Amino acid sequence: MRFISERRLDDGVIEREFSLGEIPGTLWTPESASASAPVPLILMAHNNGLPKAEPRLVARARLSAAYGYAVASIDAAGCGDRPRSAADEQARTDLRRAMRAGEPTDEIFESFVGPLVEKAAPEWRTTLDALLSLPETGGPVGYSGWTALGIRLAVTEPRIAAAGLFAGGFVPRAQREEARQVTVPLLFLLQWDDEGNPRQRALDLFDAFGSKEKTLHANLGGHTGTPWFEREDGDRFFGRHLK
Amino acid sequence: MRFISERRLDDGVIEREFSLGEIPGTLWTPESASASAPVPLILMAHNNGLPKAEPRLVARARLSAAYGYAVASIDAAGCGDRPRSAADEQARTDLRRAMRAGEPTDEIFESFVGPLVEKAAPEWRTTLDALLSLPETGGPVGYSGWTALGIRLAVTEPRIAAAGLFAGGFVPRAQREEARQVTVPLLFLLQWDDEGNPRQRALDLFDAFGSKEKTLHANLGGHTGTPWFEREDGDRFFGRHLK
Repeated sequence: MRFISERRLDDGVIEREFSLGEIPGTLWTPESASASAPVPLILMAHNNGLPKAEPRLVARARLSAAYGYAVASIDAAGCGDRPRSAADEQARTDLRRAMRAGEPTDEIFESFVGPLVEKAAPEWRTTLDALLSLPETGGPVGYSGWTALGIRLAVTEPRIAAAGLFAGGFVPRAQREEARQVTVPLLFLLQWDDEGNPRQRALDLFDAFGSKEKTLHANLGGHTGTPWFEREDGDRFFGRHLK
Repeated sequence: MRFISERRLDDGVIEREFSLGEIPGTLWTPESASASAPVPLILMAHNNGLPKAEPRLVARARLSAAYGYAVASIDAAGCGDRPRSAADEQARTDLRRAMRAGEPTDEIFESFVGPLVEKAAPEWRTTLDALLSLPETGGPVGYSGWTALGIRLAVTEPRIAAAGLFAGGFVPRAQREEARQVTVPLLFLLQWDDEGNPRQRALDLFDAFGSKEKTLHANLGGHTGTPWFEREDGDRFFGRHLK
């Protein structure tokens, strides 16, 4: 793990870009974090592999770091600004065409989000190894964001102790089936009128999770309308589980 | 309004029993509340008119008072320990019989919860007048608990500025129709596996509210399994609206 740059932000947060082999990442930590006072780590990912530099993710990450967490995000294989396979590009082209034509998109989403999750999960686990070797981070670990990747990691990665999932995005068949195996505490966030995320499908997914402690927060409005207080609720949710 | 008793509790809360004509009530206030530092008022009621002395309501009320609110509850006409009409008693007898026999209960609930809400609402408004005349309380006012009464009050009482509703109980036809007229910010609390409160009906009710700001919190478990952190979330919800 190699740190490339470091910036001290005005909210008391240190933002560091890093690379880990081919993986580009960003780590936000409160400046108080140190070897003698390590802070819990939260892995934060956008639905459907959107870039880690996307302003809404950066804003969430900085605020949660200011609250007292180490927050990390990466562009995993096929995600964000990383190169895409010819098949991924084809699926995206097909998707745009289908949406313009008003045709069903489930199978096209499946053909590019499914492989995206499969390829991203191992890179997130590799990153987790590296991040936990830093003196200023301590376990257990939280996960926040992209639902499909969160399910995959919660099922395969025992160091994930709690997950906040945003039900905004297509969840591949494999992860819908894996949902029953998820047992960590969950905070599941839904926008009631999210055009791209049918409500009933999100409610069915919430119902399917195997976790004994799971909470659904639903708010009126579309995909990008999540109210500001939900981020604070997320901090408190992690505060209950990342001690 | 006549205060009958006063107790100083060990959490810094003053508990006062009062009567207002025929209406018996309890008021919990933080001991810091005074004419020069009034605190916002929350009206708190149990679903289906259960007694104000019920331990779960008292515990909630005390904790919210310790947090900084004045909290009041009453046994309104036909509710709690107050006398019931012969028709109410008959409906309850019919209800028990129908539940034992596994028969439908909707019409029986309608016949006693419907009138209960109609009779209770004016007494809560009378109580509100009296409570707001106290020097240590200040508006705007919050409402917490019984969904059907909350809908009625939110629609008829302009001083109610925000409502936390617990979807645990039968909501009469009249209030299901009035839900569209509710416009105050709402926090709607649902137990995912509440035997007495069909999930789909609760979700439909949440969908129906006219409020622009409405949040659903759903947790796994049965009717009495609401996790402790939801009470704190309720305090914060009121904190955003009762300034």
